[in-house]
Amino acid sequence: MTSRVLGVLGGMGPLATADFLHKLIDETPARRDQDHVPVVAYSVPQIPDRSLAIIGEGESPLPYLLEGIHTLKQAGAQAVAIVCNTAHYWYDDLVEQGGLEILHIADAVCATLNGIQRVGLIATSGTLAAGFYQSRFAARDIACVLSSELDQETLVAPAIECVKRNDLAQGHTLATRAVRRLLAQGTPRPEAVVLGCTEIPLAIAYQASDVSDRCIDATRALARACVAWSRAEQGSRVLGF
Amino acid sequence: MTSRVLGVLGGMGPLATADFLHKLIDETPARRDQDHVPVVAYSVPQIPDRSLAIIGEGESPLPYLLEGIHTLKQAGAQAVAIVCNTAHYWYDDLVEQGGLEILHIADAVCATLNGIQRVGLIATSGTLAAGFYQSRFAARDIACVLSSELDQETLVAPAIECVKRNDLAQGHTLATRAVRRLLAQGTPRPEAVVLGCTEIPLAIAYQASDVSDRCIDATRALARACVAWSRAEQGSRVLGF
Repeated sequence: MTSRVLGVLGGMGPLATADFLHKLIDETPARRDQDHVPVVAYSVPQIPDRSLAIIGEGESPLPYLLEGIHTLKQAGAQAVAIVCNTAHYWYDDLVEQGGLEILHIADAVCATLNGIQRVGLIATSGTLAAGFYQSRFAARDIACVLSSELDQETLVAPAIECVKRNDLAQGHTLATRAVRRLLAQGTPRPEAVVLGCTEIPLAIAYQASDVSDRCIDATRALARACVAWSRAEQGSRVLGF
Repeated sequence: MTSRVLGVLGGMGPLATADFLHKLIDETPARRDQDHVPVVAYSVPQIPDRSLAIIGEGESPLPYLLEGIHTLKQAGAQAVAIVCNTAHYWYDDLVEQGGLEILHIADAVCATLNGIQRVGLIATSGTLAAGFYQSRFAARDIACVLSSELDQETLVAPAIECVKRNDLAQGHTLATRAVRRLLAQGTPRPEAVVLGCTEIPLAIAYQASDVSDRCIDATRALARACVAWSRAEQGSRVLGF
């Protein structure tokens, strides 16, 4: 069978991009190289901070994101996965101005939430301000629990910074604490916690812990959606071959 | 500082490409996303088997490799790393017809062999037939020990196949056995074994073993060479920004 070519807009950060590519392979039923999803990846981390831009304190990354999508389109990509939750703040602009289908990471997560009525959400301040997870959960009558401002400042944000500087051990300590605190919050308690920032699954997976099987990994959900997309249209052509 | 954009020609196989991207991050001194090497990766595994083509039993992958390099060049890559040792058989054609500098994986390995006088080499039959490792070792007066034909057939080739179908446990058993047998071969014994196939480091690293610190990982050597290359020309421009 042939597969459609996936464009990966990454670099935010680079480790999350490599992690996504791993999960894409993991989620693909393959016995040989040729069974895997063809990918073109644009991982250029020289791009302004997404969360700072959303709260109005930094340059917009939109032109950089569009440059990435245009590059991927020219390179043969037929749809795009953005390996950064926060960047989905610009989703509508990117679809409209980029001219390619973009598989939304929060839609991919929602496809895995069957039967769940209450979830916690770990994400950057930018993603929380953007609200695309909360609105999707609300539309499905799923209650959503967020970290307190204090936890966001002292656990979630520092955990993400740790992963970006490759200190996974400290990132793990902070991220598992943030997840544990969400799981203990409210009545009834959340049944699971969505890891809605692509750095966080790397921190959680650093070593085994009591929270790992309570987490829903947005990166893996996106990978799964991409595999399904790539294999959906049999008989389509791959890069002209 | 700014970094030059690296093109990664991968997909042979996809897991080796993700592994290379990990090692590229690992080898980069970085404290934040923006410090990392900007990368465009072309990971399209729908390409003919390299070893079969070299021994004259399959379609040439050269047009597919060139398509990849042209795509990377158009996407802004200023040099290319090929994450497949065997594909280096077509190195001269790819440089000449691709129009981009290609960082040769065997040159990257040689840069790490200071003081070593005798090495073992684990590689595909295609890479061994191509001879680019052996000629470089000979030019440096480094003696080279190869697996027997029987070991190649019963250990090395099956280990590579295992990685390609994501059976790292069995790949590990076979690959460590192949390395151990090389380390015990000849007088004097080889001081190290070069893992000259990008699947093999994945098999070796699957779990700790007695051979891991005797191995020279060509994938990591290439990553290190790429980081040095990307950071070598400060002040150069990144994708027009």
